[in-house]
This record gives sequence, structure tokens and C-alpha cells, in this order.
Amino acid sequence: MTDQIRVNGERLWDSIMEMAKIGATAKGGSHRLTLSDEDKDARDLFASWCREAGLSMTVDEMGDMFARRAGAASERAPVGMGSHLDTQPFGGKFDGIFGVLAGLEVIRALNDHQIQTRAPLEVVNWTNEEGARFAPAMLASGVYGGVFDLDWAQARPAVDSSATLLAELQRIGYHGGLPVHDHEFSAFFECHIEQGPILDSEGISVGVVDAAQGFRWYDVSLVGFAQHTGSTPMRGRRNALLGMAKIVQAVDDIAQERAPLARATVGSQVEVGPGSRNVIPGKVDFTVDMRHPDADTLAEMDTRLRAVCQGVAADIGLELSLEQISYTAPVAFDPGCVAALNRACQRLSVSHTAITSGAGHDACYVARRAPTAMLFAPCKDGVSHHESESAKPDDLEAVCNVLLHAVLDVAGVAN
Amino acid sequence: MTDQIRVNGERLWDSIMEMAKIGATAKGGSHRLTLSDEDKDARDLFASWCREAGLSMTVDEMGDMFARRAGAASERAPVGMGSHLDTQPFGGKFDGIFGVLAGLEVIRALNDHQIQTRAPLEVVNWTNEEGARFAPAMLASGVYGGVFDLDWAQARPAVDSSATLLAELQRIGYHGGLPVHDHEFSAFFECHIEQGPILDSEGISVGVVDAAQGFRWYDVSLVGFAQHTGSTPMRGRRNALLGMAKIVQAVDDIAQERAPLARATVGSQVEVGPGSRNVIPGKVDFTVDMRHPDADTLAEMDTRLRAVCQGVAADIGLELSLEQISYTAPVAFDPGCVAALNRACQRLSVSHTAITSGAGHDACYVARRAPTAMLFAPCKDGVSHHESESAKPDDLEAVCNVLLHAVLDVAGVAN
Repeated sequence: MTDQIRVNGERLWDSIMEMAKIGATAKGGSHRLTLSDEDKDARDLFASWCREAGLSMTVDEMGDMFARRAGAASERAPVGMGSHLDTQPFGGKFDGIFGVLAGLEVIRALNDHQIQTRAPLEVVNWTNEEGARFAPAMLASGVYGGVFDLDWAQARPAVDSSATLLAELQRIGYHGGLPVHDHEFSAFFECHIEQGPILDSEGISVGVVDAAQGFRWYDVSLVGFAQHTGSTPMRGRRNALLGMAKIVQAVDDIAQERAPLARATVGSQVEVGPGSRNVIPGKVDFTVDMRHPDADTLAEMDTRLRAVCQGVAADIGLELSLEQISYTAPVAFDPGCVAALNRACQRLSVSHTAITSGAGHDACYVARRAPTAMLFAPCKDGVSHHESESAKPDDLEAVCNVLLHAVLDVAGVAN
Repeated sequence: MTDQIRVNGERLWDSIMEMAKIGATAKGGSHRLTLSDEDKDARDLFASWCREAGLSMTVDEMGDMFARRAGAASERAPVGMGSHLDTQPFGGKFDGIFGVLAGLEVIRALNDHQIQTRAPLEVVNWTNEEGARFAPAMLASGVYGGVFDLDWAQARPAVDSSATLLAELQRIGYHGGLPVHDHEFSAFFECHIEQGPILDSEGISVGVVDAAQGFRWYDVSLVGFAQHTGSTPMRGRRNALLGMAKIVQAVDDIAQERAPLARATVGSQVEVGPGSRNVIPGKVDFTVDMRHPDADTLAEMDTRLRAVCQGVAADIGLELSLEQISYTAPVAFDPGCVAALNRACQRLSVSHTAITSGAGHDACYVARRAPTAMLFAPCKDGVSHHESESAKPDDLEAVCNVLLHAVLDVAGVAN
């Protein structure tokens, strides 16, 4: 019976630590930008581990890597497991990497126990999830999911040179021949650190991610009148910062009133002018970020935001510009995949909870093509995109075991 | 009888326009920084006009210019009238200049009508009122008033070179021999544009300034925790910008509750970090400016500000730093001088109102040594420190006539 088999948590941890040495930073993180020399080294290391595990590797036109383990039912589309090996500039050791190496550890555990699945399995490394060297983020999974055009994606320029993504793929030898769209999964699972504080603060090892928030991003500016702070009476002032202050609070209220799923934030990118302590703020530029897993609720939050901004601008006599600069629809992960993850949690008696992803992940785009779900592991204080990113070996092992048993469930056992 | 005499408004206006040609800017303002070549030219022009008007000039160790018209009672200290000829960078034509040339016009009008006063009269140009080239502002009148030390003031460095104020005084030939403190006034009057919108919006020609607000300046910083806007629940966030928003509103409330004299403003000098739209603001730095003509009320506003900031920081879990970086005490101008100005307004049947100065002026420091008061003229939309600064000839003439009659009142008429 496969019920008793477990992954090797120590091997998983050692692999993550080994991978972290590539582009290691002084403060304990990793700096491994997409298609840099470090990314090539990471890909090569991953490919060598895949070879050792007996997997066959294919690479597609976006540099996505698919390491395949044959199944007994070769006609079935593979069950995919993966994430990304690139990092943020001076990023952490776990973001992305854990999801790829958890997939590899599942394969290694199956090899240890000589278990063959019915569907083939694939460990996947998606190119340029972070978007730090080539904008936007989740570029290759976005091409796979039909969100971005292949030619456009390959022509994206690097922020640190005039090279395109295609040229850099060719330079490091990872421009493969497999057409991006000629690839099917019968299911896809991504393991990731939560990048939020919920699991860590509640002491829960496994988050079963059943949805990802949709989000709307806005650029807002308010123009009032810059006047002397001493000689200008309070009455009749057109103080742009006072307008922003009211909106900052209203944005917070919009989310608090829709707790616990909603998020709404005026971000930390704020400009106030003209920049003098004894001049009333005449202009402010700021951003708003609103998120919810339900598209209708998110639309209603949008309506509320617009009404608040217009009301504040009218009250104070400010000129308002409010532009929605991007919209990403919520993702409801596949109920079958989510159910398989929950069954695995129960079978393993591991502490788990349903959770919504607040950040974007490759799985969000893959979900447009294949039945998909995610698992989250707690990370310390929810900190991510930082060299101090930290996770516990036991939690990662627990999540990886859930992945193993969900994959066995979905792929089926042949022997 | 002197009741019928009036200044020549056209001559006053023409002198202001002539002076404005020195350092004239493309957009209709003046750029005449303290002790620059343009300031020397302005001083020379003023000195030549004073000679033509029969005045004798002395210059003190700070470059302050005193153009004297003898009185019948030579033992009496002179009645001073003046302001400053330096401007802000790309400043206006009226700020300061009006006060000096209004004094000169009073002299010219008395000459026209061959009227001798009992007390001598002096037209004064104070050095470095603006503080733009040598910090701080109102430097020479501050030395006169005993606020700043002479040696310290003379050693102030220029912001645009390594030259000291003393070196620049010597370079342009305006380092005089008169000890700063060996100078008495029996009264001092400063005419100035309001630099605020009250007179302009109410259509009143003359503001009789009976007080200048005291002010307290603060540097405030709030430190929270920078986290992901999507994956961080609303509950438990330590959003520094939300803290600032509450304080911005509370600061506004502090002044609104003490209307119409109080002013309280979070200025336009704001830094929000770390500077990303999808990161919750972890740190904000901002300034607070609070003003009131009554020192006790201003102290009470200070107490309220501290309580608000501490309350907000505790509620949200922010680290607060609140530092008062400067305090300027309120000035109550001399009741006798204010009464003389009000009598002149009534005699001339000119529209006038009592007003408090929200900005600092040379007269605020002179008031520490001599009975002093000020007159304000309306300026368009209250705009000042800007090339578009604008005032109406009729208003300036009205203010100058009030000055003339107050000076006659205080100095006494000999013939």
C-alpha cells in the first residue's frame, strides 16, 4: 500500500540549501535573476538532478523545463508539479525553488519505493516568474495560459541590458524546441511558501489554496492648491494631502468591511508636492491595490473606491484623476485538485487550512489550461522577497508529503 | 493741515516696477538673492533715490541701510519704515520691496508738501530677510532684535558658494561701520503684501496687523512593517501610512476646532517607504506646522498633537518619533502703533480689518527693541514667493497713505 510512503524531508531540505548556493548573498538569500548566468547554473543543477532521478527533459520555446517520469498509461497527460527557480534581486531561498524541488522530491520518493503511477509525472520549472529582470511577472506561464503572446513575451527586454528574453534564452542554452502550447497536463500542483503571515501565526503546516485573489491596481492623483501654511486660513484650503488621508482611511475601511477575504491598500509609492514643510500640499500621487477572490465583490469595491475618491475631491475642491492600470481576475482552483489535496491532508493527519492566495503564482495562469491547485507552507512572519525569507524543514516536508499523496491520488498507482 | 496730504500712488508703483527690473525674470518676477550683484544694484538704486530725496544714509555691520530725514526734535529716536529688498529665488516684485519703497514714498510726499516732522524719519532696508541665500530668514533684523549673535550671523555661509555673509557684504561694499545694536527707533512700521488670501478674497485694501502667529515645527516619523499587500490580512497590519492619514486629519481638526486663528498643517514634505505599490507602507516621515497668535493656545495644540500621535501609534502598533524642531513665540505688536494705524484708516475712510500675520517678518524681530506694527496689502489669490505674485496699485497706494498718516501721528508735525 502506498499510504505508508513518505518523502525524505532531509533530502528535500538539502536540495533547497544546495540550490541556494547559486547566487548566494551575504545575508543568507539568493540573487538569481531570470536567464542570468546564475539562472543557467540553477537550471543545469536541476537538470542533472532530474537525470539522476531517471527523468527525461524537454524544454519549450520559452525555456520552460519539463522533467518527465513515464507512467503506466502513456496516453494520459502528465500530472505536473512545479514552480520557478528564478529569484527576486537579493531574494530568498524558498520562493519558487521549494515548489520545483518538492516536485523532484516526490519523484525521488516514488523511485525509492519503486512505485509507478498510471499517468506520467512532470516536474516543471517555469521561466521568469518574478518579473524582476523581464517584466511582467509570470511571463512564461502566462504564455502557456494564453494570457501573453509568445512573440511579445520573447521580445521582452532585460532591465539590465538591451538583450531580449529570446536572446538570453539562446545565450544560456535554454531556448527549447517544444512549442509552448503543445503541452497538456491532466492536473497541475504548485507548492509555494505563503508569503503572508496566516499559517505562521496560526501554527498550521499546510495551506490548501482553493483560490487566488483577483486584483485591481489604480493610479490616483489629487491636485489642490499649494499655499503658505501660516497665512492661509483653514477654511477654503485645497489640501491635496488631506484628500489623500481621507482616501487612505476609506480604502482601509473598504477592506475591513469585507473581512476576512478582502484586501485594500494605498501602497508605499507616494509623491507629495511641492516638497516644503511650510507649504500646504498642492499635489499628491499615490496608488491603490484592491483584492478579493470573488470578482463581483471586487467590482463592488471598485465602485465604492470611485465614489469615495469623487466625494473627497468634491468636498475639498480637488482635481481627481483615478485610473485603473491593471485588472487580474480571481482564480478559483479546480475543485477536484483541491479535494485531492484535502484528502491527502486528512490521510496524513497534518494540520491544514483552506487559504486564498493573495499573490500571483504560475499556477494562476496554468489554471487556464489544466485542473490546478496549490499548497502553501508557512514562512517566518510572512516575509518574502527578502534575503531573510525563512521556512521550517518540518513544514516543507509536511507540504511535500501532501503533494506526494495528492499526486498518487490523481495520477493513480499502477503497481 | 496735514489731513489732506496723500502719497503719489503712481510714483510708488513706478518705483516698484523700476526696482523689479533688477534681476527681472522671464515670467514677470524678480530673482535678487541676498548680497548678490543684483542685490548690490538694488541697494545702489535705493541709495540714489534716497539721496535725491535729501536723505542721509548710514549702513550698519549687517549691511542694514538707514536713510534718514531730519526731524525738528533731533534728540528723538527716529520713526522707522521699511522692510527688505532681497527676494526669493524666482520670487515676486512686491514681497519686501513694497515696504521699503512705501517708506520712501512717504518721505517723497512729505517733501512734496514741505512738511517737517518732529521725530526724525528713517527708511530701512533689512539685510537677508528671505534666508534663501543665507539661512536663517530675517537674519539681520534678528541680530538687531537680539535673537541672533552678530558674529554667528556674519559667519553664515552662502548656499551657492563658500563665501560668508560678511565676505559678501564687503565684496558688494555694504559692510557699514554702524554697530547693529546702537540704533533706536521711537516706532517702526513695516508694510508688506499679505502673502495670504484673506484681504484679496474679502476685497479689503488694508490689513492692520496687530499680532504675528507663533509657530511650532515638528518632524514626525512612524515605523510599521512593510508587507505584501495581497497576502497580508487587514487584521494585524502595521501600516505606517494609515497612521499618517489619521494624524493628517487630526492635525486639520486641531486647527478647525480653534478657528479662525489657528493653523495646523502636515506640510508637503513627505517620504513614504519602501516605495512599491504592492508593499504596505512600512515607514513614513512627515512634518507638522502649527501656528497661533496666543502662546498658551499654541502650547495646548502641542499637547493635543502629542496625544493624537501617541494614540494613533499605539492603536496601529507603530513606532513613533515626534520632535519639535523649532519654536517661534507669538508677537503682539505695540498697541500704540496699532492704534495709530487704525486712526489713520478711519481718517482716510479706507476699508480695513485687523489681521494676524501668519508668516515671519522683519517687524517681528524689530518688535523686541521698538514699538512696532505692520500693514498688509492684499495680493492676488494670496500667492507669494512666486514670479506670479501680484498686487493692485490702488491697494498699495491706500496702504501707503495709512502709513503716511500713522507716521505723522506718531512722529508729530513740526510746521
